[in-house]
Parts: sequence; C-alpha cells; structure tokens
Amino acid sequence: MPVSAIDSDFVLKEIVGRVQSISEKTGGVFEVRIGLAAETVGSDAGQLMNMLFGNTSLHEDVVLHDVDLPRDMVAGFAGPRHGLEGLRRRVDAPTRALTCSALKPQGLSAAGLAELAKRFAAGGIDYIKDDHGLADQAYSPFATRVEVVAASLRAERARYVPSLAGDLDTMRQQLAVAAAAGIDTVMVAPMVCGLANFHRLLRDNPGFAFFAHPALGGAARIAPPLLIGKLFRLLGADAVIFPNHGGRFGYSPETCRALARAARQDWDRLRPAVPVPAGGMSRDRVKEMLDFYDADIMLLIGGALLQARERLVEETSAFVAEVRSFGHG
Amino acid sequence: MPVSAIDSDFVLKEIVGRVQSISEKTGGVFEVRIGLAAETVGSDAGQLMNMLFGNTSLHEDVVLHDVDLPRDMVAGFAGPRHGLEGLRRRVDAPTRALTCSALKPQGLSAAGLAELAKRFAAGGIDYIKDDHGLADQAYSPFATRVEVVAASLRAERARYVPSLAGDLDTMRQQLAVAAAAGIDTVMVAPMVCGLANFHRLLRDNPGFAFFAHPALGGAARIAPPLLIGKLFRLLGADAVIFPNHGGRFGYSPETCRALARAARQDWDRLRPAVPVPAGGMSRDRVKEMLDFYDADIMLLIGGALLQARERLVEETSAFVAEVRSFGHG
Repeated sequence: MPVSAIDSDFVLKEIVGRVQSISEKTGGVFEVRIGLAAETVGSDAGQLMNMLFGNTSLHEDVVLHDVDLPRDMVAGFAGPRHGLEGLRRRVDAPTRALTCSALKPQGLSAAGLAELAKRFAAGGIDYIKDDHGLADQAYSPFATRVEVVAASLRAERARYVPSLAGDLDTMRQQLAVAAAAGIDTVMVAPMVCGLANFHRLLRDNPGFAFFAHPALGGAARIAPPLLIGKLFRLLGADAVIFPNHGGRFGYSPETCRALARAARQDWDRLRPAVPVPAGGMSRDRVKEMLDFYDADIMLLIGGALLQARERLVEETSAFVAEVRSFGHG
Repeated sequence: MPVSAIDSDFVLKEIVGRVQSISEKTGGVFEVRIGLAAETVGSDAGQLMNMLFGNTSLHEDVVLHDVDLPRDMVAGFAGPRHGLEGLRRRVDAPTRALTCSALKPQGLSAAGLAELAKRFAAGGIDYIKDDHGLADQAYSPFATRVEVVAASLRAERARYVPSLAGDLDTMRQQLAVAAAAGIDTVMVAPMVCGLANFHRLLRDNPGFAFFAHPALGGAARIAPPLLIGKLFRLLGADAVIFPNHGGRFGYSPETCRALARAARQDWDRLRPAVPVPAGGMSRDRVKEMLDFYDADIMLLIGGALLQARERLVEETSAFVAEVRSFGHG
C-alpha cells in the first residue's frame, strides 16, 4: 500500500508499519527491525503469521529471524498448558531427561505398530509417538490404530502419542477417538494444519498435552528458533520436535542451542516447552546430547532402535538406562 | 526410516519411496525424481503436502519443483468448481480479461472501506477483494465490514470478495455471514489456514467461488508454478493471486508464465483457474500484461488506483476501459 494513498490520520499514526532500524551484518546481509501494530493481529494465530511473514515469505532473500511480542499478546496465546513439568509428571520422571521413540514405517498394519509399541514399552520408553507420516491411510486407519496401540499399552507406563492430521473437524474426531482410548497426549504439525487450527484444538482440549511436529516448517526461511522454539511454544505446544545437528538434517549446533533456549527460557509467565531433538539420532549420541542440552529435554530415537529388529526391547532398555543414569555416573 | 529396519514385504514393495532418476543441472544442482505411493496420501490435502514437502522443507538446499499425480487423485481433489468460465459468467464478461482491485489500507473503518468499494464499482471494476491483511480486527470487524461493503455494492455489477481468516470454525462463520449478505465469492490464504481446511471449506460450499491468496507461500522453496498454479488449482481455487514480475516481488517472467500455464492448461478434467498477476501493478502495465498472459486472466491493481485519491473513480474507469478495449484496438 503506497503511504501516499493513505489519508486517514489514525492509519498513518497507529497502524502503518515502521522501519525501526537497519544494520549491516556480514556480506551484504542486513538486519531490519520493523514495528507492526498489535491491532493488526488481534488474537488469531493465523493472522499473526500472516502479519509476520505472509507476503514477505514470497521474497526469496528474506528470512524471518525473530519477533518481540507485547505482553498482552503473549498472555492471550498463553503457551504450553502442561509443558516440561506436565510431561514429566505423566511418566513419573521429575528430573531426568524424557525418552521417546516412533512407530514406523508407513504401511505396517495397526497390529504391527502395536507390536512395536509393546516392545518399546517393555524397553522402558516414556513416550511412543506415531511417525508424522502416519495419517488415516487404508493400511492403518487412525481409529483402528489408536484403539489397537492404546490397548497394547494399557498395562504400561509408556504414553502413546498418535499423530493427528486432516482438517479441523477431522482432527477433532481423531481427538475424540484418542480420548475414548484413554490417551492424553497427541502430536500435530502446526504448519500443515494451520496455526489457527492448532491453537483452537489446544484451547478446546485442556486435558491433552501436544507435541508439535516441524513438518512443512520450511525452517530455512523462518529461523527455526523463532518458528519451532518460540511460536509453537507461544501457541501452546508442550513438546517441540526438531532435527538435531549432526543427524539427517542440516541444522547447526548453534541453531539447535538457540531453539532449545527459546523453548525453555523465561518468557513472561509461559511454561517451558520440552525440546525434542531428533532426526537420525542413535544411542551413541545420548551422552553428548545430554551434555549439550542438559536433562530438561526429551530424547527421541526412532529408526536406530527399529534397526535392532529382534533385539528391539534390549536396545530400547539400553537407551533408557543411559538416559536414566545421566548425572548419576 | 532405515530400510534395513523394515521386514514387511508389503512395505518394501508397495510403500517405500523410490529414487527414480538423478540428473545434474547447472552448477552442482541436481534434479531428483522420487516416486511415492499414493496410498500414503489418501484423500487429505494436508497429508499430500506432508508427503511432498513435510520434513523435506527443513532442508534449506532443497526446492520442491513439481509433482505428477495419479488421475484418481486428481479426480478426487477435483479442482475449481467455477474457475475461469464461472468467474467470467458472474460479471457477464464472456471473453475479455477480468479486473480486480483491493480494499485497503488496514485500519480503515468498514464505512471507509465501503466508500472505496463504491468508487471502484463506479469505475467499472469486476471484483473488489479485501486486502489479505484484513481479518477480524477491532477497527473493521469481519461481520460489520461484509455487511456494510456488500450493502454499498447492492446495486452494482461488481462482486465483493471478502478475505476469510482464522480457524476452520471461524472461517465457516464468516462464510455464513457472507452468504447472508448475498456474497458468492471469497478469498482464502491456503498456506495460512492449512490446505486441508481450505479444501474442506471448498467442498462444503459449492455455491462459492474461491480466490487463493499466496501469503506464507514461501514460494522460493516450493516452486510457485507448482504451489500456486498447480496445487491451489487442484484443491479447487477458482482464481490464484500471485506477484507479477517487475512489481514489488522478485518472480521472474519465466516463473510467472509457468505459473499461469499451470493454472490454465489442460489437466485431466479439471477446470482452468484464473491467474491473477498482482503485487505493485499499475495502469501502464495493462497492455504488456495482456500481451504476456492473453485475456484469460484477471488484472488486479490496488495501491496504484488508490493513489489517485479523489480521482479514484476516473482512474478505475481508465483501467477498466483499457482492459475492455484490448484486442479491439
């Protein structure tokens, strides 16, 4: 909108965005700070993203690096309802790092996935999540999968975390199926389902804890610490999954450290979210990851445990024992 | 998922992705073609995006360039219900290019926006859309805005196209408000609201035509012809707005040409969608744009018309006359 076309004093004084500073970083890259009016966002998470990086995402040489939000807006979005403490309480692990693994590959039947879940639980894992590729496919429909996997874990301490997918109505139906099966923790990919729908689901279901999956995060264009550590937490993600450095993805140690800091650091009255570094992790990374992040995390190892095949329970037990012994060695 | 951890024959044969070809382009850039099983997608638009570019979006050196879909899947998503022909019929313009302008800036009251709409209509514009920044802000709440703007256009041929925002429930309520005001065309940003919700809204409201706005399209990482021209059309967008070359954004002429081609070309039985090049366009670009795209488009000029201020109606009339006279000169 050309400023010269605006004749409202209110708009010119209160609404128009302002360039607050421009400073040159290295190599012709500039850091630009822009002030936007909080009134343009209101209380909708989708509109927050639209104002932060809507049209600007179409510029291929612009990265959304960070955002400072007014306290009222932070309080309005409200952040995690359970967060680090709540997820620890659920599995009776008040101080140590939490553990997680993933049900996959796609294509296994519900019974096949339940069998894997049972073996992860036998190995002592805290949280067993769906691979984020599991949706409502014919080979393991959501409702069947949740019932069968939940039933297989009924006598276990481990929590099953099914992945919700589809439009808001569909995710609500899935949540009802999960609740009926006694489940209290689910996973959502906020960028796939839309931030407003993610936030709505959270607000409407206070008993559930939510893992945020980074799929479609396009995090090379929105700084990962901002998107995954800060914004997903702001909207209420209790745990935020992200690709750890040195795995299948290209995040640097600095990016991962900043992301974990954003998820846990003091931010008004928001609860900390649990950082969940993942993406090609294995047992030989456990000690290094705990040194790097400390114990306020959840360690997620999927494929590397599944590779043990018939020794899955033993491999899982060894992973769990390593996490439990950290700090007591 | 390590392939070595998979022991199901069905998964190995039918589900696991396959690298079909790798060819080197210029400068160390490779084109890689990967085959995925249609069963992994089912019929959900969010899951389609999750499979195409979920985790892969987290690699900063990968661009999703194009996709070929099986005919059944194309028929299932179904594409535009109104498309080019339907949007032309609504404004009684069977062959010429369509015209469009935008209500802005943010911060104007509903009455202020209605006054602008009336003047655009007096100038002969076909479609008058909300700026995509207009959501449900206190200074012009959605319901008030739609009622007041629609009322101001009741005697006009011009169609008002309000922008829907928020979670799926909220967008449905907005659609009901719009329907009650006699509106039959709306705008949505599919990447902000989530593709599955966009698609659900479309399927549930066959009487409405939908403009797709590219906000949060991050189109530097997903090729714009694929995302905006092809996928938005696949899910049913009747008109797709995109930044034209030589405007405020950096798309090249080749990108724009490919995008318009994707939106209109024969594709199984899908109707063509209307390409809407925009983003800093002005009257002096009209003839060039019509030469570049031909008349099967909608021309969208916003700020450059609004800059005329007290001469808005005359400037709009001149724009409309130029479009109408194209091919008759």
